[in-house]
Amino acid sequence: MNERLERLSNLPLRDNLKGLAPYGAPQIDVPIQLNVNENTHPLPAEVLEAIGIEVAVAATGLNRYPDREFTELRTRLAGYLGHGLTAENIWAGNGSNEVLQQILQAFGGPGRTVMGFPPTYSMYPLLASGTDTTYVAGIREADFQLSAAEAARQVREVGPDIVFLCSPNNPTGTALRLDVVEAVYAAGMASNTVVIVDEAYAEFAHNGTASALTLLPGRERLIVSRTMSKAFALAGARLGYLAAAPEVTDALRLVRLPYHLSAVTQATANAALKHVGALLANVEAIKGQRDRIVDELTRMGLKPASSDSNFVFFGGLKDPQAIWSGLLEAGVIIRDVGIPGHLRVTAGTEPETTAFLTRLEELLASGL
Amino acid sequence: MNERLERLSNLPLRDNLKGLAPYGAPQIDVPIQLNVNENTHPLPAEVLEAIGIEVAVAATGLNRYPDREFTELRTRLAGYLGHGLTAENIWAGNGSNEVLQQILQAFGGPGRTVMGFPPTYSMYPLLASGTDTTYVAGIREADFQLSAAEAARQVREVGPDIVFLCSPNNPTGTALRLDVVEAVYAAGMASNTVVIVDEAYAEFAHNGTASALTLLPGRERLIVSRTMSKAFALAGARLGYLAAAPEVTDALRLVRLPYHLSAVTQATANAALKHVGALLANVEAIKGQRDRIVDELTRMGLKPASSDSNFVFFGGLKDPQAIWSGLLEAGVIIRDVGIPGHLRVTAGTEPETTAFLTRLEELLASGL
Repeated sequence: MNERLERLSNLPLRDNLKGLAPYGAPQIDVPIQLNVNENTHPLPAEVLEAIGIEVAVAATGLNRYPDREFTELRTRLAGYLGHGLTAENIWAGNGSNEVLQQILQAFGGPGRTVMGFPPTYSMYPLLASGTDTTYVAGIREADFQLSAAEAARQVREVGPDIVFLCSPNNPTGTALRLDVVEAVYAAGMASNTVVIVDEAYAEFAHNGTASALTLLPGRERLIVSRTMSKAFALAGARLGYLAAAPEVTDALRLVRLPYHLSAVTQATANAALKHVGALLANVEAIKGQRDRIVDELTRMGLKPASSDSNFVFFGGLKDPQAIWSGLLEAGVIIRDVGIPGHLRVTAGTEPETTAFLTRLEELLASGL
Repeated sequence: MNERLERLSNLPLRDNLKGLAPYGAPQIDVPIQLNVNENTHPLPAEVLEAIGIEVAVAATGLNRYPDREFTELRTRLAGYLGHGLTAENIWAGNGSNEVLQQILQAFGGPGRTVMGFPPTYSMYPLLASGTDTTYVAGIREADFQLSAAEAARQVREVGPDIVFLCSPNNPTGTALRLDVVEAVYAAGMASNTVVIVDEAYAEFAHNGTASALTLLPGRERLIVSRTMSKAFALAGARLGYLAAAPEVTDALRLVRLPYHLSAVTQATANAALKHVGALLANVEAIKGQRDRIVDELTRMGLKPASSDSNFVFFGGLKDPQAIWSGLLEAGVIIRDVGIPGHLRVTAGTEPETTAFLTRLEELLASGL
């Protein structure tokens, strides 16, 4: 144990934190970063200009607290989502992690349970622990799929206070069919279960994939979370949001820290939302590279999962860690999500994808 | 009960939230806003320009996640604080509320207690509730003072896991003597107590008031929190921070949400910290208005508390609510902090202060 860790262990940390290390993918500065599912296309010039102008206007009032209700932003987010949603249905935070944490603060906590279906977004158990909510891991089928009947059966059995459904799922990339969401919500009626559908990657889904937003009417415990980090290429701006019944946003007002969204964050997101077309222009190109990765990996004899996101999860690897290291040596970082035989790669620009595929094929040809 | 509240009550809220209303001062748009202790001086032109440039640079990389360790910002904050502190001693969040919440997540929680000395910052019990930490209210003397001996006695008796000491205290405005901090820390040795000195208003203290930063060496459970919202006139940017032993920041890395500080927030704060002189230029003027308020209220026969902050807490009022309403009618909003016979007013610019004092004297002369 090094000296710093020893000093940490001398502090009166709460029990469930003792011995833990901080969460987070390595931030390694290499030329081709395909490890955290960012949008690798920089922002279009017109969006940069709009952000500059909007932030400059906001800056003149920075000595004052921001609009605690971020009304303009909620209105713009509702307009973007459509489906008849209004500002009353929208809530936002500094990244969807904060939004999810607020949901757990409102509906989870000591003596309550939250259920997820691993492999899924690795922050769910950490958010549970951070709010003293008991995390219950549901079971997926062998190919990481989740059927409506099986998901509903497990939810009925556990009766959790909250369920996380990640669609498209991270790290596997596949979207859930809406009948799974409907079945889980129905199965949770007896236990008053809050159902969160995490649609962080929804904009990358194959054409015709329906959003859980269509299921909101009449389901007051259904929450659909989204983010501007992925399709909107704004990971650095930290803006996550959700759509739900208005009373859900009232519940979150009870636990949010006052003025949690800065005036600068609001200005940045508002500026971006005035240029949705330009921002989303690269989504089709990314989907093209994503499909190319799936095709090429299949050709190489690997087993990529069907992907509705901007990344591809693939198995069939004898030595994932050697592949990961071999790619890193060539300046390409992807993600080892800790699942035997598998790795995950973000779909980047065409040259980035080419660099990844070329190097991977070399590594496989070398016998790895 | 209106329909929206009834719908909220039908949701499976956790028990300690049932029946609550969201925290927050009214956001009323009147000409003279002296209710939330903002710095009423707008940012200097050179700072606005610097923020614009720094944010524009950051925007070009917004498609990527921000520096999770915000290293440049921690370095600049350490440089501003001095006292031999380095980036290793510094942590920051979206407002000091988030920093305080992270401290409670790391060292508080179910089965643990946090102690405050009301009247004090009204977020402390809410942060306790939000993290399921039991809040224990200590007792101040009749004039809202807190002596070293008395504070130490109460801490020894309660043995809390965490103590909040607010200095200068909000809403009373008076700074604690450092012997109180020393005595509380010593009294908490037996219970391994984490002691937080909340110095949000430290820059407004009377000349010669020592900061608890001077007490950090050798006290690994002492934390001094600060904010850029007040003296730095950046309430809208939401940047709170703390100085402590390096292992305390490691503890907070276990509970912080990854990438909690956006690239835009980091850029805004970094830009401001390159212009500390210009930003703090108004602090002396504000202290002058603060002292003027104390003098004038005394002359009017009221009882202002000694203030080391940018606000004045005053008693001797027969009907505080009528005074509050009478001021609001004249376009001046101040704060009713719920303490009988008292109100609190922020020291604004000279014309804002004049408007407040003139109207107040009229109201008192009318018999209120």
